[in-house]
Amino acid sequence: MVRVGILGATGYTALELVKILLRHDGAEIVALTSRQEGNPHVAAIHPQLAGRLDMHLEDLEASWIAARCDCVFSCLPHGASANVVHQLLDAGNRVIDFSADYRLTDTQVYAEWYGQKHVDPDRVGKAVYGLPELFGDLIPDADLVANPGCYPTSTILAVAPLLKAKLVKPEGIIVDSKSGVSGAGRTPKLTTHYPECNESIVAYNVGRHRHTPEIDQVLTFAGGQEVQVIFTPHLVPMDRGILTTAYGEPTGDVTEQELLAGLREFYDGQPFVRVVEHLPATKDVMGSNFCDVTVRLVRGRVVMFGCIDNLVKGASGAAVQNFNLMFGFPETKAF
Amino acid sequence: MVRVGILGATGYTALELVKILLRHDGAEIVALTSRQEGNPHVAAIHPQLAGRLDMHLEDLEASWIAARCDCVFSCLPHGASANVVHQLLDAGNRVIDFSADYRLTDTQVYAEWYGQKHVDPDRVGKAVYGLPELFGDLIPDADLVANPGCYPTSTILAVAPLLKAKLVKPEGIIVDSKSGVSGAGRTPKLTTHYPECNESIVAYNVGRHRHTPEIDQVLTFAGGQEVQVIFTPHLVPMDRGILTTAYGEPTGDVTEQELLAGLREFYDGQPFVRVVEHLPATKDVMGSNFCDVTVRLVRGRVVMFGCIDNLVKGASGAAVQNFNLMFGFPETKAF
Amino acid sequence: MVRVGILGATGYTALELVKILLRHDGAEIVALTSRQEGNPHVAAIHPQLAGRLDMHLEDLEASWIAARCDCVFSCLPHGASANVVHQLLDAGNRVIDFSADYRLTDTQVYAEWYGQKHVDPDRVGKAVYGLPELFGDLIPDADLVANPGCYPTSTILAVAPLLKAKLVKPEGIIVDSKSGVSGAGRTPKLTTHYPECNESIVAYNVGRHRHTPEIDQVLTFAGGQEVQVIFTPHLVPMDRGILTTAYGEPTGDVTEQELLAGLREFYDGQPFVRVVEHLPATKDVMGSNFCDVTVRLVRGRVVMFGCIDNLVKGASGAAVQNFNLMFGFPETKAF
Amino acid sequence: MVRVGILGATGYTALELVKILLRHDGAEIVALTSRQEGNPHVAAIHPQLAGRLDMHLEDLEASWIAARCDCVFSCLPHGASANVVHQLLDAGNRVIDFSADYRLTDTQVYAEWYGQKHVDPDRVGKAVYGLPELFGDLIPDADLVANPGCYPTSTILAVAPLLKAKLVKPEGIIVDSKSGVSGAGRTPKLTTHYPECNESIVAYNVGRHRHTPEIDQVLTFAGGQEVQVIFTPHLVPMDRGILTTAYGEPTGDVTEQELLAGLREFYDGQPFVRVVEHLPATKDVMGSNFCDVTVRLVRGRVVMFGCIDNLVKGASGAAVQNFNLMFGFPETKAF
Repeated sequence: MVRVGILGATGYTALELVKILLRHDGAEIVALTSRQEGNPHVAAIHPQLAGRLDMHLEDLEASWIAARCDCVFSCLPHGASANVVHQLLDAGNRVIDFSADYRLTDTQVYAEWYGQKHVDPDRVGKAVYGLPELFGDLIPDADLVANPGCYPTSTILAVAPLLKAKLVKPEGIIVDSKSGVSGAGRTPKLTTHYPECNESIVAYNVGRHRHTPEIDQVLTFAGGQEVQVIFTPHLVPMDRGILTTAYGEPTGDVTEQELLAGLREFYDGQPFVRVVEHLPATKDVMGSNFCDVTVRLVRGRVVMFGCIDNLVKGASGAAVQNFNLMFGFPETKAF
Repeated sequence: MVRVGILGATGYTALELVKILLRHDGAEIVALTSRQEGNPHVAAIHPQLAGRLDMHLEDLEASWIAARCDCVFSCLPHGASANVVHQLLDAGNRVIDFSADYRLTDTQVYAEWYGQKHVDPDRVGKAVYGLPELFGDLIPDADLVANPGCYPTSTILAVAPLLKAKLVKPEGIIVDSKSGVSGAGRTPKLTTHYPECNESIVAYNVGRHRHTPEIDQVLTFAGGQEVQVIFTPHLVPMDRGILTTAYGEPTGDVTEQELLAGLREFYDGQPFVRVVEHLPATKDVMGSNFCDVTVRLVRGRVVMFGCIDNLVKGASGAAVQNFNLMFGFPETKAF
Repeated sequence: MVRVGILGATGYTALELVKILLRHDGAEIVALTSRQEGNPHVAAIHPQLAGRLDMHLEDLEASWIAARCDCVFSCLPHGASANVVHQLLDAGNRVIDFSADYRLTDTQVYAEWYGQKHVDPDRVGKAVYGLPELFGDLIPDADLVANPGCYPTSTILAVAPLLKAKLVKPEGIIVDSKSGVSGAGRTPKLTTHYPECNESIVAYNVGRHRHTPEIDQVLTFAGGQEVQVIFTPHLVPMDRGILTTAYGEPTGDVTEQELLAGLREFYDGQPFVRVVEHLPATKDVMGSNFCDVTVRLVRGRVVMFGCIDNLVKGASGAAVQNFNLMFGFPETKAF
Repeated sequence: MVRVGILGATGYTALELVKILLRHDGAEIVALTSRQEGNPHVAAIHPQLAGRLDMHLEDLEASWIAARCDCVFSCLPHGASANVVHQLLDAGNRVIDFSADYRLTDTQVYAEWYGQKHVDPDRVGKAVYGLPELFGDLIPDADLVANPGCYPTSTILAVAPLLKAKLVKPEGIIVDSKSGVSGAGRTPKLTTHYPECNESIVAYNVGRHRHTPEIDQVLTFAGGQEVQVIFTPHLVPMDRGILTTAYGEPTGDVTEQELLAGLREFYDGQPFVRVVEHLPATKDVMGSNFCDVTVRLVRGRVVMFGCIDNLVKGASGAAVQNFNLMFGFPETKAF
């Protein structure tokens, strides 16, 4: 039984993580942390968990956690996460970090996009990027897995195979993503106040969303040539789900069937990516760890679609998939 | 041209009020107040008003407003509203108050339900309750109109005629109301954070919602006998609209047609109440100043339905209807 | 391994049932039926099941099914269901019927509310009503379980314990229920067309909804005295969830704590009913087999709340809970 | 008073049209047509219109309409529309056609995209395309105005000014549009059944949506060079609104401020296009005839945004704007 701790347990990704882990008979949750006053019962924060998990959220020391856990999931925000994670790693814990702190391999790019110096620069570039479909070989032995961002997952899984197969050019890729509101977190803000964002769609952070360099980095790795995407995220009035529509130019004459074949070949044997022929809807993957991908050829342009539940394959499901690989469980366990 | 001021102009009722008044050629908005720093342009707060109203929100003194306005709409919260309103009335302004401050006629009931002493107790009981369908005769001469609460409007318009006609008993009336989220205001809170309230329905403030004594008071007046309702408000995942389903006992043998006739007689000539035979949906009245009402007889119990847009007939539309009556315009002007 | 067949596999309850059974290692789905032309693959009908279940929907004979299945779940509509179910039972199958055909114990009441004669009148009254919290003792040996309706489940679980404990009077119980749209099924209709029902709440079938006699029957059984409820269902703009708010009169002096104690005592040891102190939201139970119940005392009236996911505890989850009891699995298996 | 007829009055665009015209004191609705049996009252079809318009929907002959109307709005589908419109025009009526029948100027393109021969080929190319911001000079004298499609309006208003100013290249323009569900019409279908499309986003008709040649044609006209867009429409879970995000390459070195200046110059004096600096949300224009546009420069690519209410500026509002210009009313009358 792997003893698990969850840092920052008040948010939506932590809730989803707990729900998945409760179905996992190889994991035991032994610590939930939060800075909320009064050590509230987890069901007071997440009524969905009433009667399912009898624990309190506590403001625990890293050393306390390190001593009692085999694996720690950090749902803390960037900056705050590295602050704790580096102590846990020093103490010998294995960590799956939901924050962006260890995803980028370049501290300068981190500083530029996140507006702060990295607190643990020596480990930057040494974590494994937790996308098993691309880095599955490295995950079993990793002590630190940087769990991917939700937009990057939906984009990379749609685009990387075609870049790698040299079917799509690395230049000028456009990524138009549409996300449900839970991706914005659980802290009330005017932009996510129900009467503001309901019945409305809007783009945000155009040209400056922090997932941009993460997408660039992994697509550059996949294609072997520099990629700089034009990334436009949109907020959609729904709880969950991301649909990414990406546009690229083909490298030469290619048919839709050849593009689909490229996707199928890349994902052969992968349990959580479904190469579909229809246009995927986010509802098709809601609550599941699947990413549905497909591709169309429109007037000589390649239109790629990636579709996930942002809280599952885009966060907590991917984390448990990584956990399974790290601790020798079947990759699909608990799903 | 009636010069109009709007206090507390950052919220949803103020936005709706401005949109209606922009269609009213007898009203000129001359002041918008708010405590927001930096006197923001109204379009920075309400992007819907871009290009339609070129004004700033300012933190204005009551005396400044009193000198420049003929009519002031106060969209301030209770307590804060009476604090300004009493100065405006003393200075000779006519006021339509959206808050609950002058609705209740008893300072003790006010203190009990609102948890604070009234700041202007001498005027309590002297305002006109701004429901033209019941108090239309008093509104033209009123200097202070207490604009009704949204739940009370949807309830009173469904129930009062049948109480007045002695078709329904005053005892044991149950009021089960369902409201869209804009009724909770524009301040972000966890309960109105999109991923919390979307795809969910919940009751709240059961037995202690502040609209309870207001409903009691007006139904007691209408029926001539004491009424104490059991009131259960619910939050529904939609922007706007209230549907109230109320249950009462008939005073004797009565048919559904007689009950409908009672409603029709009461509302004869009223432009904004539609007595319908079908079951009304909130979408039927969305964006309009209508209240749709109907009634059913089920196993000897009278089931009454009232349906409004909470921001229009439940707030700003009713206010302009009152404004029209106070200043001699046709009641339906601007609708 | 119990061999399972699912009749009428194109709808939402069948989809939900498949998703639960895919997590159940004691059940194997061996047949899916439908009258759709061309024997479509299940993933063509339910894209969520792509890559998870490789079967086709077929128009199979009852005898074919009877020969290959140990347990049949019928998701067919009333009338159509009994037509097949009686053949399966005659052939020795065990059946869990989602339709209303075997819920009512009186053929005349059935004929009155469903507008047709029962096709299998001899079995009427001999099925077990599949609400394990009330009839758990009878389910293990049942060959025919009548899976409860969604509104009845949310109502009975909130009201029955207080009736049984004689804390609430059997007369004059009001049941005001609010349901998500999936309860209306998967056949497109104007009332469930997105732009019609979105952003709107409406009551429907007031006084004539077919779940009325079912609620009456089970509450009468629970309380030992005749119950005739006033039942008002409402359509709420959300996919899933039912919140029932029920109103009754206490039999005597009683406190809220005593009412809560009555609920707690009744549900002691039940895995799927959570007696909570907060007001439950449908989101708290979304995707789960829980029913959250609570109670308030308001001005001398008992206000009872029951909250379920209509597709899980209100249909397919309850069915698998019954299946577990019928075939000797732990009651919570697959949840 | 202009006598107005509305053909195909059961749909959402007709409802919106009636609501706008009821505020227009220069227009009188004298005929509503439909093939619904029994000549239903308009309020039986559109409960929103109860008490506001006392007319029946009738299956009227073209000659009857021609004799009694000065202006006819056709809300009929393509094909069916031209069938009636050509008779009305022959009889001397002026017509605003909501269908695509007279938008395209080439019968072959029409046949290719709409899959049928045009029934009135001689008039093809002779209608005025009813986008007043581009063709305002021609509308006053037009007898036949082809009211634009909703996607084209949101796209053309964002892109055409920058093409015309030679700031954006005509090649490789990508149009990624997101629309509310009312754009799909009022006929119930599985794809617009509430539980299917709620809480989900999906692309549809990729590469073959019929608005593609319309966008091509008008952008080609605006830019003076052939344009062939890559157009991807998406269905968003909301009633109304279209947000189009379009991507193009700048013709040379250009700043965001210069791009914005290009938009401002083009729309100088236009009452219904707002060039904004923030990223527009569809809620900002809901219920209004505004189109909000803005532009960003991201990594050397021009990202253009256009935002409308599909039922107003995307259909019925534009139609009344055209009507105002055709009959000599102020362009903003009734808005």
